[in-house]
Amino acid sequence: MILAVIGTGLIGGSLGLAARSRLDAHVRGTGRGGPRGVELGALDEACGDIAAAVDGADVAVVCAPVDVLPAVTREVLSLAPPGCAVTDVGSTKQAVVAAAQGDERFVGGHPLAGAEVAGVEHAREDLFDDATWYLTPRPSTSGVLLERVHRLVTGVGARPLVVDPDDHDRAMAAVSHLPHVLANVLVAQAAGALGGERVPATGPSFRDATRVAGANPRIWTGIYKANREALLEQVDGALEQLARARELLASGDEPALDAWQRAAGEDRRMLLEAGLAGGPVRELRVAVPNRPGVIADIALTLGRSGVNIADMSLTPSPDGTRGLVALWIAERQADRATTLLAELGTPVL
Amino acid sequence: MILAVIGTGLIGGSLGLAARSRLDAHVRGTGRGGPRGVELGALDEACGDIAAAVDGADVAVVCAPVDVLPAVTREVLSLAPPGCAVTDVGSTKQAVVAAAQGDERFVGGHPLAGAEVAGVEHAREDLFDDATWYLTPRPSTSGVLLERVHRLVTGVGARPLVVDPDDHDRAMAAVSHLPHVLANVLVAQAAGALGGERVPATGPSFRDATRVAGANPRIWTGIYKANREALLEQVDGALEQLARARELLASGDEPALDAWQRAAGEDRRMLLEAGLAGGPVRELRVAVPNRPGVIADIALTLGRSGVNIADMSLTPSPDGTRGLVALWIAERQADRATTLLAELGTPVL
Repeated sequence: MILAVIGTGLIGGSLGLAARSRLDAHVRGTGRGGPRGVELGALDEACGDIAAAVDGADVAVVCAPVDVLPAVTREVLSLAPPGCAVTDVGSTKQAVVAAAQGDERFVGGHPLAGAEVAGVEHAREDLFDDATWYLTPRPSTSGVLLERVHRLVTGVGARPLVVDPDDHDRAMAAVSHLPHVLANVLVAQAAGALGGERVPATGPSFRDATRVAGANPRIWTGIYKANREALLEQVDGALEQLARARELLASGDEPALDAWQRAAGEDRRMLLEAGLAGGPVRELRVAVPNRPGVIADIALTLGRSGVNIADMSLTPSPDGTRGLVALWIAERQADRATTLLAELGTPVL
Repeated sequence: MILAVIGTGLIGGSLGLAARSRLDAHVRGTGRGGPRGVELGALDEACGDIAAAVDGADVAVVCAPVDVLPAVTREVLSLAPPGCAVTDVGSTKQAVVAAAQGDERFVGGHPLAGAEVAGVEHAREDLFDDATWYLTPRPSTSGVLLERVHRLVTGVGARPLVVDPDDHDRAMAAVSHLPHVLANVLVAQAAGALGGERVPATGPSFRDATRVAGANPRIWTGIYKANREALLEQVDGALEQLARARELLASGDEPALDAWQRAAGEDRRMLLEAGLAGGPVRELRVAVPNRPGVIADIALTLGRSGVNIADMSLTPSPDGTRGLVALWIAERQADRATTLLAELGTPVL
C-alpha cells in the first residue's frame, strides 16, 4: 500500500510509523516535518508538494488544522488519482465533508487520539492503539475505498466507528467542545468569586473539572469556529439544563435533588460504558449488489444504531456484479446487527 | 490533650489515629463507629453519649453530616465544659457558625480531605497530611481556644487557613459545589444529545470533566441545601458567563475567542498556584492585649488578605494582662503580614 500523509506532524508521523511497521506500507509525507519524519522512520519519502505525494497512492490522509482542512482536502482530491481513497483526521466533519462535494473517493475521519505535545518528533507507533477512529462516509462514498480506509484504521491499531457527519459533530460538541467551554466558564467564575488575593486552596474536583480550561488557543479557536453551529446547540442545551438546576437548587426540594443527583450518576455510567469496546466478536457475511453507496449505507445504518464494525473485508464476486462483505461485530451487538442487515435487504448468509 | 470526636467515621477515625499517634492525645469517640474505632486504634474510649465524651475534654470535634451539624454542634456546646474548644468538619460554615450563637468556645472548621470511601474502617493516620484545613473563627472566639484548635490541626498534618465563614462558603460554592452542578449538567446534556443507542466513545476530557457527576446523593443533597444561597450566587454567575461565552462563540470573532481561551488558561494557573503552600516560613512575634477577639481578629485579617498562618503559638504574660503570639508565615507572605499586623496595632516585635 502506498500511503500519502498530507501534513507530517504528531498525527501524520504516528500514522506513518504504524503503517510502515504494521502494514508494510510505503509512506510519503508533505509539510515542514517531512525531512525529520524520514529521519525518524515515520516516512519513506518527504515530498515537496501534494501532487508528488499522491501520485499513484492508494490512500491519502489529510492531516491539516481544521481551519484550512476543507481547502487542503479539496486540493488533494483534485490531484489524487481516481482509485485513491482520501480521508482526513479533523475533529469536526461537516465542513470537510461538504468541501468534498460528494466525491466518491472521500471518507471523513477523526481519530480520538492526540497528546499534549505537537510535532513529528513526538510521533509514536502506538498512538492509535485502541483509540476510537470515527469514519463519516456519505451515500456517495465508494464501498471499496471505504473498506480500504477502514482496513488502514484497524491496521494502525484503532477501532473504526462509522457515523453520520452531523451526528459526529453534535456528539463532539457534547462530549468534548462543551466540556472545554464549561471549563473556561468555571475558571472565570471562580477567579471572579475568589478575587485576587483571597484565593483559598482548590481541591481535586476543581482541578479535574478545569483540566482543559484554556487548552491550546490556536487549536481551540479553530475548533470553536469549525463546529460553531453544533456547539451553539449544545451550549443552548447546557444553558437550559443549568437554569433548570438553578430552580431545583433554589427549591431545596430534597427528593427532587436526590433524584437529580442519582440521574446524573446513571447518565455518566451509561455514557462511559457505551464508550467501552472490546470483548468477543462475531463474523457476519452478507452479499451486496455492486452499486454505489451500498457499503456506506450498511456502515452508516449500523453506526447510527450504535453498532460498531470492529473490522470489515470486501471481496468482489468473479463476475463483478456482487461483493461479499464480512463484518466483525462485537458479540453483544451481533444480533441487532443481523436484524438491521435483514431490514436493509442484505441478510446475513 | 483530651480530644472528643463526636461521630466516629472516616474523618473522626482518621483524626483519632493522627491525634493519638502524633500528639499523644487521649481520644474519646461517640457514634456507631466507636467500638470499631477502639479496635482499630483510632480511639482510646468509645462513649455512649456526647456528655461522657466531652467531660473534661480540651477539644471536641463535631464530625456530623451537614444536615444535622448545627443541631449536634449546639448540643455539644451545651454539654462541653467552659474551657473546651469546640470545632467541626462540615463543608459549609455559615449555618453551623450561626448555630454556635457567638459562643467563645466555637471555631468552625473544614478539612479539604476525604476519600471515595466512608466509615471508620477506612480511617488513615495520614488523611490530613498537607491538606488545607479552613478555620472560621468569629470576633467572639477565644484566642486561647483558637490557638488550641490551630495547633491540633497542624499537629495532625494539615495546613490551617483562617477565613471568614461567608468567604469560605462562597469559595466552596465556586471551586467545589458549582463544579458538581456543572458536571451533572454536562452528563444530562450529553445523554440527551447522544440518545440511547447512538452513543459514541467519550474521551478523557469528558471523563475528567464529569468525574463528580452524581457523587454520593445523600451527602450532596445535604451540601446543596446547606450552602444554597452561596451556591445560587455562583450558579447565576456561571449562567451569565455561559451566556457571554455563547455570544462570543456565535460571533466567530477569532481574536476575541483567542483572548478568551488565553484568559481561561491564565485564570486556571493563578487559581491552582494560589492553592500551593509550602516553602520556607518566617516567625513573627507580636504582643497582644488580653481581651477577647484579638487573636481571631489577627487570624481573620491575615486570612482575608490571603496570608496563611502555617503555625501559631500563644504564651500568656506572667501577670495575665498580655499574651505573646508567635506566628509562622510563608516567607513570600511575611512582609505583607508584617504590614497588616502593624495596621492592626500589634506590630511585630
